[in-house]
Amino acid sequence: MTVSAPFVPGLHLLIDFWECRMPDNPTEIEVALREAAVACGATVLTVELHHFGESGGITGVALLAESHISIHTWPETGYIALDIFMCGRCDPQLAVPVLQRRFRPGRVKVGAHQRGQD
Amino acid sequence: MTVSAPFVPGLHLLIDFWECRMPDNPTEIEVALREAAVACGATVLTVELHHFGESGGITGVALLAESHISIHTWPETGYIALDIFMCGRCDPQLAVPVLQRRFRPGRVKVGAHQRGQD
Repeated sequence: MTVSAPFVPGLHLLIDFWECRMPDNPTEIEVALREAAVACGATVLTVELHHFGESGGITGVALLAESHISIHTWPETGYIALDIFMCGRCDPQLAVPVLQRRFRPGRVKVGAHQRGQD
Repeated sequence: MTVSAPFVPGLHLLIDFWECRMPDNPTEIEVALREAAVACGATVLTVELHHFGESGGITGVALLAESHISIHTWPETGYIALDIFMCGRCDPQLAVPVLQRRFRPGRVKVGAHQRGQD
């Protein structure tokens, strides 16, 4: 008898960074997202970023073969919201120290959610 | 004396859909993401989608002026993972019935997370 393993899509992290060193430009964010993906062994398909003008925030996403990493910055408050969803063998938690090194938050919250479970 | 309101970045929904009517192509997904954004009064900046080949899944994101909507499909299991993060006056919960109408899940789970709060 073969018992198939239950379908587990992956782990989804909601990451709050407060009191950050704010990135000035989208290139700095792209480097951080790519470095975070590599740390997890994930494959980047595309990086899409939008800058809301000088002193405005930056919003963007790295689409991965294993799902995505998103980022949204609020320079006026020092706050950055990230989320990382990765399926397969990749562990999104390996991205957190990379992102911390890049954005130097004074305070961090990481919520971990197993997707596809009741 | 002026008391400023606390900074509240927005609401983040993690949405699991099981037993879905699976979208065949990226265009169908793009229409659904745009319709979901409109339902919330959000502004779409770009939609980025990737199709993992015939009978493979589709992964993608709508970047919004108010953050993002992501989608990842697993056609072989009938499962779709979505997440919606919206800041400002937009309510991401208004997108859920739109996405349900599009993908007809037999079973739904919606987790709601206020971002930027301890």
